[in-house]
Amino acid sequence: MNRERLDRVVANMKAEGLEQIVVSATASVYYLTGLWVEPFERMLALYLDGDGKATLFANEIFGISSTPELPVVAHRDGEDPVRDLAAVVRPGRLGIDKFYYSKFLIGLMEHRADIQPVQGSGPVDLARKCKDAREREAMRRSSRINDQVVAAAIALVKEGARENELAAAVNKLYLQHGADGEGPQLVCFGANGADPHHTGDGTVLKKGDSVIFDIFTPIDRYWCDMTRTVFYQSVSEKQRRVYELVRRANEAAIAKVRPGVLLSELDRTARGVIEAGGYGPYFTHRLGHGCGIECHEPPDVSNASDTPLEPGMVFSIEPGIYLPGEFGVRIEDLVMVTESGCEVLNAYPKDLTVVG
Amino acid sequence: MNRERLDRVVANMKAEGLEQIVVSATASVYYLTGLWVEPFERMLALYLDGDGKATLFANEIFGISSTPELPVVAHRDGEDPVRDLAAVVRPGRLGIDKFYYSKFLIGLMEHRADIQPVQGSGPVDLARKCKDAREREAMRRSSRINDQVVAAAIALVKEGARENELAAAVNKLYLQHGADGEGPQLVCFGANGADPHHTGDGTVLKKGDSVIFDIFTPIDRYWCDMTRTVFYQSVSEKQRRVYELVRRANEAAIAKVRPGVLLSELDRTARGVIEAGGYGPYFTHRLGHGCGIECHEPPDVSNASDTPLEPGMVFSIEPGIYLPGEFGVRIEDLVMVTESGCEVLNAYPKDLTVVG
Repeated sequence: MNRERLDRVVANMKAEGLEQIVVSATASVYYLTGLWVEPFERMLALYLDGDGKATLFANEIFGISSTPELPVVAHRDGEDPVRDLAAVVRPGRLGIDKFYYSKFLIGLMEHRADIQPVQGSGPVDLARKCKDAREREAMRRSSRINDQVVAAAIALVKEGARENELAAAVNKLYLQHGADGEGPQLVCFGANGADPHHTGDGTVLKKGDSVIFDIFTPIDRYWCDMTRTVFYQSVSEKQRRVYELVRRANEAAIAKVRPGVLLSELDRTARGVIEAGGYGPYFTHRLGHGCGIECHEPPDVSNASDTPLEPGMVFSIEPGIYLPGEFGVRIEDLVMVTESGCEVLNAYPKDLTVVG
Repeated sequence: MNRERLDRVVANMKAEGLEQIVVSATASVYYLTGLWVEPFERMLALYLDGDGKATLFANEIFGISSTPELPVVAHRDGEDPVRDLAAVVRPGRLGIDKFYYSKFLIGLMEHRADIQPVQGSGPVDLARKCKDAREREAMRRSSRINDQVVAAAIALVKEGARENELAAAVNKLYLQHGADGEGPQLVCFGANGADPHHTGDGTVLKKGDSVIFDIFTPIDRYWCDMTRTVFYQSVSEKQRRVYELVRRANEAAIAKVRPGVLLSELDRTARGVIEAGGYGPYFTHRLGHGCGIECHEPPDVSNASDTPLEPGMVFSIEPGIYLPGEFGVRIEDLVMVTESGCEVLNAYPKDLTVVG
């Protein structure tokens, strides 16, 4: 257990009036215990009480041993996974991890009609939102590597290139730089880029395509995440106009980052630039998301996020314009809030670039 | 909507006394609608009532349009994702997808104190458990490709090989064969293989290592999943004994597969072989899992699974022996239940093999 982080979580529980919570997300359990477990459909549940006493309920297949700090109650495949947890929770309000599967929560409720499940991720999310010194260094390192990888990937934009081959090349570059594994990289050509979640397929590059690289991976458990858009062989006037608008939206939001400013204000700033340029309806998602042990984690950087910025927060600023059937442009950086402003973790240039 | 599949689900709902369910898992929504959406932390919820009326509640970022068969109620980032769903559910029992996040279920319960959430994946899982003709062909095709990929991967077991490089090579081979994307492949050398969930790292191959390839990927949405264990340069008597025991366990369970036999009986058969050989405590997981649109899906092939086999079920048979600090052996095939027995979907040989 990381005692300092646990103490912050317990203080957050008190502030929220929660005397017990169940933490189940892989990243949150890792944050507190240093154990990395991906349980898939099996159960992993870290029970914390208001005194900071922690007990881990886990399928024995994960092979986690009890320690004096962290007793482990194991169950086997085929046994009721929530039976032991149901035996220790107290009546009344029980904070539940937002990502705990409903099958386990309903199982708990069947055992214990006297519990009242409530949203319970707040205490850990709040702690994780502001990175400590070790985490800040990990985030800087990941993004430094991402700068190198995006440069190498853009150099591969050549005649005959396919989206999925470039995505595989990005994964290979990441592995060479020590990534924890491989993942789906978003490489989108032309009209495919108008779908913000398009995953690279066999599409072949053609002249005049916008090329979006939205690439991200964990390195020593901490994620990088950056988007750059370039153009292949030529760029139309419309593409240029849209690109510059997105870039200005990205830069205007970054310029606003400092402690005390509301996250929603960043979203409004970027959106305002794009609306003023006449493309408001084509910026269809929030401005960004927190990033750390998970690629997407709190804070939410949206219009609805009335939380003030604090030093140590790390999140993306990624405005985009998506023109169905035509093309898309997105430019994304990770920023880390400092005492007086922010550190932009990505250094790869954002000037409009035509390759090939 | 796939009307035939929906009709089966509605019949299953009736049999379970469920008049309404919320389906949220990506694979289940795909099974019924043909839409593939990975919502990550956002909400996707297909609401079905007892008359087979379907409504999809989804974040608008997924870009799903309403059709006469499937009206879509969209919400935006920053809005309460369950508000619209809460407005249509009826009082009383509401079946909830096992993988629905607790944050959404608790949100629903806050809106509607008059609902009683119950386990609700049964009707869809039951339908998905027995593959229809199109699905059977897709499963065969995926596993045929897996036979080729495992052969090519084993050919790469050479001096200086690292686990993560072989894992990357497997992904590359899969992509060349049309895989939907890349994923974490389990390649484990020597003592690393004693952890059934070890993910390939920078470990370098050495003489006498067992080498486990547990490799799996979706191809046109349907998964293959196979494990082979080979030895590098030499094999000890103990390794040979353990290997042959695992192979006999795998083959004994396969020989039992036919309609009407209980899934638990398969687990007991394989476990019995390993126990009789003196390694019972080192076979630490269930025998297998269903496989289809998800790599792990119902049915569960464990001691606790008192379901009779039915034609069309596809699942893994994967006994293993894990000796901490020494080595591990696992042999896994996918099998498909037929009218009179089963079709083993993997043809790659299981004879003890020493490579290099």
